[in-house]
Amino acid sequence: MADKVTIADVARHAGVSRQTVSNVLNAPELVREHTQRRVLEAVQALGYRASQAARQMRTGRSQLIAARIEPAQDDGINGFVFDRFLHGLTESAALAGYRVLLYTAADHEAELATFDDLLGVYVPDAFVLTSLDYGDPRPAWLLEQRIPFVTFGRPWGVPPAQRYPWVDVDGAAGTAAATRYLLDAGHRRIGFLGWPAGSGVGDDRREGWARTLTAAGAEPAELAELDYRTDDGAPHGEAAARALLDRDRPVTALVCVSDSLALGALQAGRGIAVIGFDDTPVARAVGLTSVSQPLSEVATRCVSLLTRALDGNGAGARARETQAYDTGTEVLLRPSLVRRRSA
Amino acid sequence: MADKVTIADVARHAGVSRQTVSNVLNAPELVREHTQRRVLEAVQALGYRASQAARQMRTGRSQLIAARIEPAQDDGINGFVFDRFLHGLTESAALAGYRVLLYTAADHEAELATFDDLLGVYVPDAFVLTSLDYGDPRPAWLLEQRIPFVTFGRPWGVPPAQRYPWVDVDGAAGTAAATRYLLDAGHRRIGFLGWPAGSGVGDDRREGWARTLTAAGAEPAELAELDYRTDDGAPHGEAAARALLDRDRPVTALVCVSDSLALGALQAGRGIAVIGFDDTPVARAVGLTSVSQPLSEVATRCVSLLTRALDGNGAGARARETQAYDTGTEVLLRPSLVRRRSA
Repeated sequence: MADKVTIADVARHAGVSRQTVSNVLNAPELVREHTQRRVLEAVQALGYRASQAARQMRTGRSQLIAARIEPAQDDGINGFVFDRFLHGLTESAALAGYRVLLYTAADHEAELATFDDLLGVYVPDAFVLTSLDYGDPRPAWLLEQRIPFVTFGRPWGVPPAQRYPWVDVDGAAGTAAATRYLLDAGHRRIGFLGWPAGSGVGDDRREGWARTLTAAGAEPAELAELDYRTDDGAPHGEAAARALLDRDRPVTALVCVSDSLALGALQAGRGIAVIGFDDTPVARAVGLTSVSQPLSEVATRCVSLLTRALDGNGAGARARETQAYDTGTEVLLRPSLVRRRSA
Repeated sequence: MADKVTIADVARHAGVSRQTVSNVLNAPELVREHTQRRVLEAVQALGYRASQAARQMRTGRSQLIAARIEPAQDDGINGFVFDRFLHGLTESAALAGYRVLLYTAADHEAELATFDDLLGVYVPDAFVLTSLDYGDPRPAWLLEQRIPFVTFGRPWGVPPAQRYPWVDVDGAAGTAAATRYLLDAGHRRIGFLGWPAGSGVGDDRREGWARTLTAAGAEPAELAELDYRTDDGAPHGEAAARALLDRDRPVTALVCVSDSLALGALQAGRGIAVIGFDDTPVARAVGLTSVSQPLSEVATRCVSLLTRALDGNGAGARARETQAYDTGTEVLLRPSLVRRRSA
């Protein structure tokens, strides 16, 4: 296949220097009119596209938003949320005149190095970060470099002075709704299958379950007894559910931090009610009631916060039905409960 | 947040024209040494990054590979294949020094318009096409524009003169392996749940089932009776399975063109053996035996064909174990059968 037409090709065809071609494209006022015409004729004849390069030279803008693509998860369930988010992000970004540039990174350290590489080579206008956690070094790095960014995820444990625009889904509201739904259905011993303490997302989802049971009269001791934390994945969920079912007064229902753990809880059998989190295709396939995140809305709001930062256009962030909290640059959206056979 | 440092900022700081800054970055031989030094000091002081713009001006290369992200599928099962492919593509591309630029498009017509837009603004070095079908206008368009590309998917019904580099998975080999596996398990009435005739991928997968049954002694009339085509999705699979089970001599096993249809077949109950296609998370969750595509390998091979075209480096495409057919620019990979409870 042929190479693309370059500025050098245009220069050769027009019989001028490459510099002159660059001038015509970037600073035509420096070039005499008949030379301009000769260059533009060569541009047309060769099909040279006045590229992003020229535009970027002028505006300092690449119209690129960089986003990490997560490594494929082992059980293929949890990757779903970020893939769905990415679909929405790509569509929303396109509507705003931006494209999404993908990168991968094994850990935070590797991601910071990748930021540096991307900024040196592709000069994205902004970043979208996902999977925020406590002590996450990425926001501080970007703030220091004064690179615009938005996060899908709250700044867990970050002092207000280091705040930045973010969009997140109220996980606690989701597990609270799931717990209330089970209480309304007559359940009293409602357990929680969660991730090990110390993950912002996991702790937040546990909190919604705990506060709803407390409001319904549960004691701290009872909460501790009903609370089981483990690694993610269906086998862990199955083992955890069995442990809670083997206690003296077994649970009759489980609120789970993920569909993976919920799937395992279902596989433990014994007909207890189970509610998952994320409403993945697996939930639909096995009839699992699950908490659904408004991922398209998350993506739209991320893009609107970014364009506001990049273009100074405040009209992008409008009130929506799903909105739970919005200071203009901090947006917390409400999830919804999708009811199926499992609860 | 602050704007990025532009060439204009550097020029102001160095007390030279923007043109001189551009010269220092692109054609330093045109600039006197002490002016070069002044500009480079300003570049350092302001943290200006000699951007992709400058590099692209010189080389005509953007180091970008454009790929479409599929719209999220209704049942969330089939999107999995392309999302997994995208993970692999991003990783393989990064290793080769390229990044993936995402775009969306509602249909072929919209995609051609998007090609044009992307080429005008971002100037990707190459495209990766997915979901090829009969009469697909995209390859011809890119060939005519002499834009390098590779497809994940064979050129269905394309005359040899219009051939181009592609990577695909041998779907017929996958369904043949599934059918042989069922024959070996003693099944004789093995039905096929497929998509309506006319899709390259669907027809190919049907062919593997049909030729294996023919080799085992089935008559054309019997094949026709066992063959059921319908739209994708679990409800369609359930209805189709019931139809095949309600016949005089019902099937005892089903080979399905997708996990979605296979899931529906399982939901039809009656304990028949069912094999799906794509080995999605749903297959794992419900214990569905399924044909698995080597998607990381597909991605690696796509990138190696592209880098060969872009860099003239033929060393990229090496023989691998999963390889079934390879002319250098046409690579057909073998899928594998993942056995679970359903068959």
